[in-house]
Amino acid sequence: MAVAVAVVTDRWDGLLLAPRLVTLDGDAGYGLIDDGALAWRDGVFVHVGRRDALPGAPEALAAQVIEVDGCVTPGLIDCHTHLVFAGERAGEFEQRLQGASYEAIAQAGGGIVSSVRAVRAADEDTLLAQSLVRARALLGDGATTLEIKSGYGLDFDNERKMLRVARRIGEMLGITVRTTFLGAHALPPEFAGRADAYIDAVCDWLPRLYAEGLVDAVDAFAETIGFSPAQTRRVFETARRLGLPVKLHADQLSDGAGAALVAEFGGLSADHVEHTSASGVAAMAAAGTVAVLLPGAFHVLRETRLPPLDAFRAAGVAMAVATDCNPGTSPLLSLRQGMQLACTHFRLTPEDALRGATVHAARALGLHDRGRLVVGQRADFACWRISHPAELGYWLGGSLLAMACAAGRRLI
Amino acid sequence: MAVAVAVVTDRWDGLLLAPRLVTLDGDAGYGLIDDGALAWRDGVFVHVGRRDALPGAPEALAAQVIEVDGCVTPGLIDCHTHLVFAGERAGEFEQRLQGASYEAIAQAGGGIVSSVRAVRAADEDTLLAQSLVRARALLGDGATTLEIKSGYGLDFDNERKMLRVARRIGEMLGITVRTTFLGAHALPPEFAGRADAYIDAVCDWLPRLYAEGLVDAVDAFAETIGFSPAQTRRVFETARRLGLPVKLHADQLSDGAGAALVAEFGGLSADHVEHTSASGVAAMAAAGTVAVLLPGAFHVLRETRLPPLDAFRAAGVAMAVATDCNPGTSPLLSLRQGMQLACTHFRLTPEDALRGATVHAARALGLHDRGRLVVGQRADFACWRISHPAELGYWLGGSLLAMACAAGRRLI
Ligand SMILES: [Zn+2]
Ligand SMILES: [Zn+2]
Repeated sequence: MAVAVAVVTDRWDGLLLAPRLVTLDGDAGYGLIDDGALAWRDGVFVHVGRRDALPGAPEALAAQVIEVDGCVTPGLIDCHTHLVFAGERAGEFEQRLQGASYEAIAQAGGGIVSSVRAVRAADEDTLLAQSLVRARALLGDGATTLEIKSGYGLDFDNERKMLRVARRIGEMLGITVRTTFLGAHALPPEFAGRADAYIDAVCDWLPRLYAEGLVDAVDAFAETIGFSPAQTRRVFETARRLGLPVKLHADQLSDGAGAALVAEFGGLSADHVEHTSASGVAAMAAAGTVAVLLPGAFHVLRETRLPPLDAFRAAGVAMAVATDCNPGTSPLLSLRQGMQLACTHFRLTPEDALRGATVHAARALGLHDRGRLVVGQRADFACWRISHPAELGYWLGGSLLAMACAAGRRLI
Repeated sequence: MAVAVAVVTDRWDGLLLAPRLVTLDGDAGYGLIDDGALAWRDGVFVHVGRRDALPGAPEALAAQVIEVDGCVTPGLIDCHTHLVFAGERAGEFEQRLQGASYEAIAQAGGGIVSSVRAVRAADEDTLLAQSLVRARALLGDGATTLEIKSGYGLDFDNERKMLRVARRIGEMLGITVRTTFLGAHALPPEFAGRADAYIDAVCDWLPRLYAEGLVDAVDAFAETIGFSPAQTRRVFETARRLGLPVKLHADQLSDGAGAALVAEFGGLSADHVEHTSASGVAAMAAAGTVAVLLPGAFHVLRETRLPPLDAFRAAGVAMAVATDCNPGTSPLLSLRQGMQLACTHFRLTPEDALRGATVHAARALGLHDRGRLVVGQRADFACWRISHPAELGYWLGGSLLAMACAAGRRLI
């Protein structure tokens, strides 16, 4: 008679051996471990150390042993994207370079309105197919967690469609996607001249979208050309009633006291923040709000006003780096390239840029389970064909990613 | 009895069908052909037109029929690279961002001297292996012709080693590599204080390297921190005696009248040219010398002085765009990304940038057989996952290349 025996094993699911682990353990420094070994079980790191300190032969320790060249970092976390959109706006980019003004382009139906039109016209599967290409591009350069905002639908059904597409991307790619409701992105044409009425509508949609499980956080575009502080506040109050965290497109083009406003609501992040004042910085520091730097838009718009980086450092405000991937101002399909732009334009060190795209980006999403290669964190990591992590902020272009895993599952 | 019959066929070797051909035929405009067909025989285009104007069924016309999505452009031509080097200088990049001065880095053995040391220490196969990674990265984003300079050897054997590696890269990858002797790149430590004696040596090495078939053109670094006009002139005179074309790193950091000097020698190109004066522009126009724009170095060095673009346009000076791929000032592994940087930093239109990386780059290398999708040109082309060619100057990052061929042979 055959007896079924349940074999209890404490073998690791996976063990990675690499010349260099970039753990980011601790508050400063790369946390390098040379000739390193990294193991996980049930999607979580259970061992991080030197290879020669392993408690046995690799094959005996883990069901699967992988040996790679180069450096292993935490998987990159892109904490600010608008990657769900339809069409692109390269034509508009070209017109601007041919001398057309923003006004002329807007009058000809260009600008954000053209993205709204394209998203509304696309069915969910078409929107998914187009957006997946961009999500895959981000994964192809090391991202293993994505934030994705709505904000090109600007009516209930189309905002819902965008958020559903964002959720489906996460499921299809096997990664965490954090969704952000950005109904207060721009005023849709049908509400022209009635911004307060539009905010009423946004505050009506939010609980319904949340009830469908589509919303992880709430964002708004607070700017002289966006929504007023009072309007933003109403959106945030609705979020607070639902227990949803907030974040804000703040102080990109002028100091609208956006950073202080989002900090008042204990916000996860204030994003862009080029014009944030000293009081805004202080409020962010007190609230633990992360400054999300978006060098792609800075680059494409050829801005010159730098965020108050020294003030953020002095106040202990954590700085994240994200792509802001969007068709109008930041057609950036790689967070690694975002790190390069942050080094060049913002004078971040490569180490700051890497922390910004991992540890601090996790915090900007309210995620405490990832961002470092340490025991207990999610087994999200990226293996790069480089010999030093500073190369991630150095090279422009190229194909440096050799492999990436999310929760120990191979993505690339 | 079996009779062998020689079948004479005029079938094409290959036929590509694509939604959009970007031919660049003519002096302006993309030269778009929608629903296009592109055929080659013996590595040369023999048919370019609309698919519905083909003289028969595709399968009957060509030995091989390929159907792709997206846009097809001429293969990109990178007309200025230093991609043969050993090591990288990301550590130095990091030190600069941590606040170290160029002087401090140089005193610590950094800067170009560190690349010279690394190239001298590497044997030819090691140098080849490291450099191939970069050449493949450039091909991976659409380049099908590369220029490669020497200039990190700075003695006979090591300059020769670099040029041999450049030739081997061309053979291994099946592409055209144009080699440039840049012995006059920097003064090696063993000639410190004896620049004229070093130029004597350079003028002695050049004919010997040329005799080995290693040199297609001659370049120098004319700058206050480089070589003087008189020293540059001696190198150029040696080149002229050999019938070799010249080009020059000119006027990057100051107006050294480099553009006028290289034009006087009927040079192929003046490169960088940020500080070129009106008389330099006029001399280039008269000589047909191409202005090679290098936005990677401009970006990384955060320069602000733009090349005299309007003057070049007004004078009819062709403008090429290249990567300047090098470990110190332009760690740029993609000419497509160079085009994006040229659009953003120099305000080139995407069309100008594409012409700069194809038609004008071919001219900067003295190559008249490529750069456009027209009958009689070499069948070098790139197929991109995009719907409009302006996207090549628009996206940052991403993996847009679907396929590339050189002389009708598949590279990617
Ligand atoms: Zn944004
Ligand atoms: Zn150069």
